[in-house]
Amino acid sequence: MIKKINSEDAITAWFAEQSGLSADDFPIGIGDDMAEVRLSGDVTVLITTDMLLDGVHFDLSKHTLVAAAYKSMLVSLSDCAAMATVPIAAVAAVALPKSFGEKELKQIHEGIVKAADKYNCKLIGGDITKWKKGGESFVINVTMLSRRGNCEPIRRNGAKAGDIICVTGELGGSLTTKHLDFTPRVEEALEITKIAKINSMMDISDGLSIDLSRICAQSKTGACIEAGKIPISDAAKKSTNPLGAALNDGEDFELLFSLAQDQYEILKNKWRHSTPITVIGRMDDSGEVTIKFNDGRIEELKPSGYDHLK
Amino acid sequence: MIKKINSEDAITAWFAEQSGLSADDFPIGIGDDMAEVRLSGDVTVLITTDMLLDGVHFDLSKHTLVAAAYKSMLVSLSDCAAMATVPIAAVAAVALPKSFGEKELKQIHEGIVKAADKYNCKLIGGDITKWKKGGESFVINVTMLSRRGNCEPIRRNGAKAGDIICVTGELGGSLTTKHLDFTPRVEEALEITKIAKINSMMDISDGLSIDLSRICAQSKTGACIEAGKIPISDAAKKSTNPLGAALNDGEDFELLFSLAQDQYEILKNKWRHSTPITVIGRMDDSGEVTIKFNDGRIEELKPSGYDHLK
Repeated sequence: MIKKINSEDAITAWFAEQSGLSADDFPIGIGDDMAEVRLSGDVTVLITTDMLLDGVHFDLSKHTLVAAAYKSMLVSLSDCAAMATVPIAAVAAVALPKSFGEKELKQIHEGIVKAADKYNCKLIGGDITKWKKGGESFVINVTMLSRRGNCEPIRRNGAKAGDIICVTGELGGSLTTKHLDFTPRVEEALEITKIAKINSMMDISDGLSIDLSRICAQSKTGACIEAGKIPISDAAKKSTNPLGAALNDGEDFELLFSLAQDQYEILKNKWRHSTPITVIGRMDDSGEVTIKFNDGRIEELKPSGYDHLK
Repeated sequence: MIKKINSEDAITAWFAEQSGLSADDFPIGIGDDMAEVRLSGDVTVLITTDMLLDGVHFDLSKHTLVAAAYKSMLVSLSDCAAMATVPIAAVAAVALPKSFGEKELKQIHEGIVKAADKYNCKLIGGDITKWKKGGESFVINVTMLSRRGNCEPIRRNGAKAGDIICVTGELGGSLTTKHLDFTPRVEEALEITKIAKINSMMDISDGLSIDLSRICAQSKTGACIEAGKIPISDAAKKSTNPLGAALNDGEDFELLFSLAQDQYEILKNKWRHSTPITVIGRMDDSGEVTIKFNDGRIEELKPSGYDHLK
């Protein structure tokens, strides 16, 4: 059972409890970054769906439709990365405001195809709907399929006490720098899993504090991260609370993963990719998620990232 | 190239032209009821996505959330039927109005699972988002996976001049009788394709007139249907224009298919299912879609069903 971190996690855990999926037919069910379906023997496919709303995930009064549609693909691509899988194809459904027509659909298409081409994930279908009333906002939903990469999909529930906790890139301040244009770590995830055995992984979409709590809850581990080791982005450093920004801003879309010490040594020695990997702490069996400050203080790391239900 | 029947078909045809999909990797691409992805050898998976909006596809001031969510699954199940494929699993994404919480999510879940259980199509994941502003409407997007049934998926583009044109069930008046609760013809499609070789098929979602025009455009055939043979539902009979209702109401979610005369004879002899199959006309090489009235008049059948872009 998944620990109830916030209201979104609580209802997701409830859905997972209800689902009664056969682990044979569905190796991964509700509650991870993607679900996995076994089609035949060892052939499986993974699926993720993400809905993005004008005024929540982007703002069409400031951003272009091309950029919004591009982001909608990146979010799902980041889910593929989170499980170290290879994106295959996407379908996109849209709800158009009354005033939208062919011109806007071609802009949406442009954004989707830009990401599709960049990450070799084909657009293969979709659905077009239109609001009847005025004043209703643009919605775009991308569903993406991926296949296994170098190993079984890396799940949230495989962390072990003693694991080294790592993140890719830098955290915090995404809203001011890469709100609509970030790099889903598809390539990095495949490279990492080629080099080392990874025990748990997810992408940081709602903030390190909450997403680390999710890995710990699903893996039934505790964790302690060190404040001084967290790679804080330049954008976050400019904010009034840089550490808070790195812990809680969300939408970093970096990888958060854990692996055994010896595997980490191998990864460190062989890692040639330009995206940095930083050790931020260790999994433990304390049952708590804590943060250690430079002065030696240890506090509970409160999961205060983005709650989609709040 | 797909003929441009209305603005939705025109843009879909444009998307298909842009897609450049390899037929080997993607046996079916943009423009059919589902897309098909080849995963390995002869193992493929099919995918469809459908977005339903409050105030367009249902009305929460009159209908329950359970009923709306149930319908969202039926629509995708009908796409699985349209290609004679076997539903496997679905993911559902929702945009919640500000006031919605756990109670409403459980109602949505109830509707989805009701359909999932009935049609043996598991709910395996989803996404929860919430509007920030007040006054924004509920959105639900279902994406469904299916597998091949008794044959290759039946497409819209395989009709041949001389084919018998058939429909299941009765047409028209769905809004007053089965707007939120109809029977996607999953079972029927699998039974039909077990008995006979079907050349083309789709589900009637936007209305017989437009959906037949779509099959003809994609198959490069003409067609002539007979007004007197169209199975008009009791609900449509009560309207001021029963034939018009049967031709153009849409949301019938019945199967429209074509097959050779000899295959039809086999189907007719072996059909034991309670859902009726009715012959409504023939495919021809006229390049036109026409309707013949009881008095002998033949007129162009104007595709005047629902245009999602209008």
